[in-house]
Amino acid sequence: MWKQELKRIQPLSNKWFASAHERWDSLTKPKKSLGMLEEIAARVVAIREDQMPETPAKEVFVFAGDHGVVAEGTSPYPQEVTGLMVRNILQGGAGINVLARCAGAGVRIIDIGMKDDLSDVNGLIRKNVRRGTRNMAEGPAMTLKEAEAAIDTGVELSEGAFSRGAFMVATGEMGIGNTTPSSAIFSALLPASVVDVTGRGTGLDDKGVQRKAGVIARALEVNGPAMGDPLSILSAVGGLEIAGICGLCIGGAARRMIVVVDGFISSAGALVAMRLNPTIKEYLFFSHQSSEKGHRIFFEKEGIRPILNLDLRLGEGTGAVLGMQIIENALRLYREMATFEEMGITPGT
Amino acid sequence: MWKQELKRIQPLSNKWFASAHERWDSLTKPKKSLGMLEEIAARVVAIREDQMPETPAKEVFVFAGDHGVVAEGTSPYPQEVTGLMVRNILQGGAGINVLARCAGAGVRIIDIGMKDDLSDVNGLIRKNVRRGTRNMAEGPAMTLKEAEAAIDTGVELSEGAFSRGAFMVATGEMGIGNTTPSSAIFSALLPASVVDVTGRGTGLDDKGVQRKAGVIARALEVNGPAMGDPLSILSAVGGLEIAGICGLCIGGAARRMIVVVDGFISSAGALVAMRLNPTIKEYLFFSHQSSEKGHRIFFEKEGIRPILNLDLRLGEGTGAVLGMQIIENALRLYREMATFEEMGITPGT
Repeated sequence: MWKQELKRIQPLSNKWFASAHERWDSLTKPKKSLGMLEEIAARVVAIREDQMPETPAKEVFVFAGDHGVVAEGTSPYPQEVTGLMVRNILQGGAGINVLARCAGAGVRIIDIGMKDDLSDVNGLIRKNVRRGTRNMAEGPAMTLKEAEAAIDTGVELSEGAFSRGAFMVATGEMGIGNTTPSSAIFSALLPASVVDVTGRGTGLDDKGVQRKAGVIARALEVNGPAMGDPLSILSAVGGLEIAGICGLCIGGAARRMIVVVDGFISSAGALVAMRLNPTIKEYLFFSHQSSEKGHRIFFEKEGIRPILNLDLRLGEGTGAVLGMQIIENALRLYREMATFEEMGITPGT
Repeated sequence: MWKQELKRIQPLSNKWFASAHERWDSLTKPKKSLGMLEEIAARVVAIREDQMPETPAKEVFVFAGDHGVVAEGTSPYPQEVTGLMVRNILQGGAGINVLARCAGAGVRIIDIGMKDDLSDVNGLIRKNVRRGTRNMAEGPAMTLKEAEAAIDTGVELSEGAFSRGAFMVATGEMGIGNTTPSSAIFSALLPASVVDVTGRGTGLDDKGVQRKAGVIARALEVNGPAMGDPLSILSAVGGLEIAGICGLCIGGAARRMIVVVDGFISSAGALVAMRLNPTIKEYLFFSHQSSEKGHRIFFEKEGIRPILNLDLRLGEGTGAVLGMQIIENALRLYREMATFEEMGITPGT
């Protein structure tokens, strides 16, 4: 499925950007004085191919997965916390729930690769591909088929959002240990040295970061022969939630949706999608620069300017939902401000 | 009045910061993982002296004033635009109106120093001190008494907001030519060289910026002998809307309110307040770094990190109202997230 989706993705047309900027320049403000907000709304116009896009319904997709590599001691939290935090999200008590209420966004949480099946809970979208990845320091984290199944799940979810009219989707994740595969993906795909893209995650000390970088280097070495194209890299050193995010980016771009990317882990999923088809980048809004080491390097190497920089490193989609609010503000300015003509003012230079 | 207000302002207590961070650390997230949002909410707790502050009602105050110095050709827009844009705001068509609707904030617009009296309009708060400042390149922009009257107006408005329960106020302004006095204030109070803090305003070209810097240098020289304390600097090379903003900062801090400062011009007013009483800084939230040259230098010299950096340079309070939304999100996270205890999770390191 995802391969067909890749072929559907169209580059944005300059015609729509020009038309959006013409409207911006007609509004009662000095030209370009809304800075990034003008660029954001112009891109939405080009994505939606709609000169006056409505502020769309919003949904955030929180992909939950576990990671065999935590056996190497790469996270200060025990693996059980993934399940506990998913319960917390289902009960509305997590950071993402609060911000989604602020933004008026729906929250969907998907078991795409959790160890626990949480058989007793309601509201969880059950799309488990496998009960946690294998330990990537000893071999591939998952098979190519498993990675493809997780990508396809992301695509399917984008189709669901689209059918509900939620043309703005945010990526989110929950998975103890998932900065480790993310750093491995950045190292392989940017490329960058392991040390440059390996950080503290949920709170490792210097010694812990060193150990984590060693584990990542070992995973890249062990899996080296199997790693060529982006899909094989994702399978070898990725995670199921990262693959799901990759699929959401692909499906969102194929449906001309506004895809708002959260922080470090979400960016790793987005980067896999961008490497599968570089045009996808045109549909992605990177919401914030995380305080996780390596995120800055990703932005620099890819020439991307994130919307926010608040030293967040919570994940779950929290930064993305803040970003959605900025995008919505930009769209409403674009639609609702009076024009010079309406006000009888002659625009300046 | 404002001098008595200055004496009421109390430094924030570490006790409240500690208590806020204790709650943050009890919430279901890795410690400090909400970055700046944790600092923002902790400061609100300390300002309000309330362990669980409600998300307050919000108001933005747009001070409108004109500037005699535009006779020197320092702005590409004619002075009449001040009045036209005030009409636009009163009709709900300006950028600030749209963003205030997004944020659920009230908008109040004050004639504190406009040239036109707009005698035909309703809804304008009429507090005119004088019909535009004098040309500061030829002498003081206003008398000390006029500056004090404008500051007092800002204080009065903070009292009004306080009495309505609007404990979060934003500063905004409208005034053709008002980057010129702002740059002069930054140059005198930071201090900084005129060239370093003089930028394009609403859209000057390189030659225009050069002329503007020359005018500012002349104003600083002509008024030099009269410029000593912050009040005399504000009178000599400031503006009435800048004085009003200064007063709002003073009155807001005196009432333990959350004062959200907009961009370049608002920061000039805030800087005067900070120089009158350095403790005021603890009550101010600088919402964004404007693309106007010199704003970055202000932040660097004062050791302040703005919340947003979106290349805005519209004024009116637009960036401040975006900032209020971020502050509100931070407060709701602080209040509404579940604790580890509630979830039965043992916090990690």
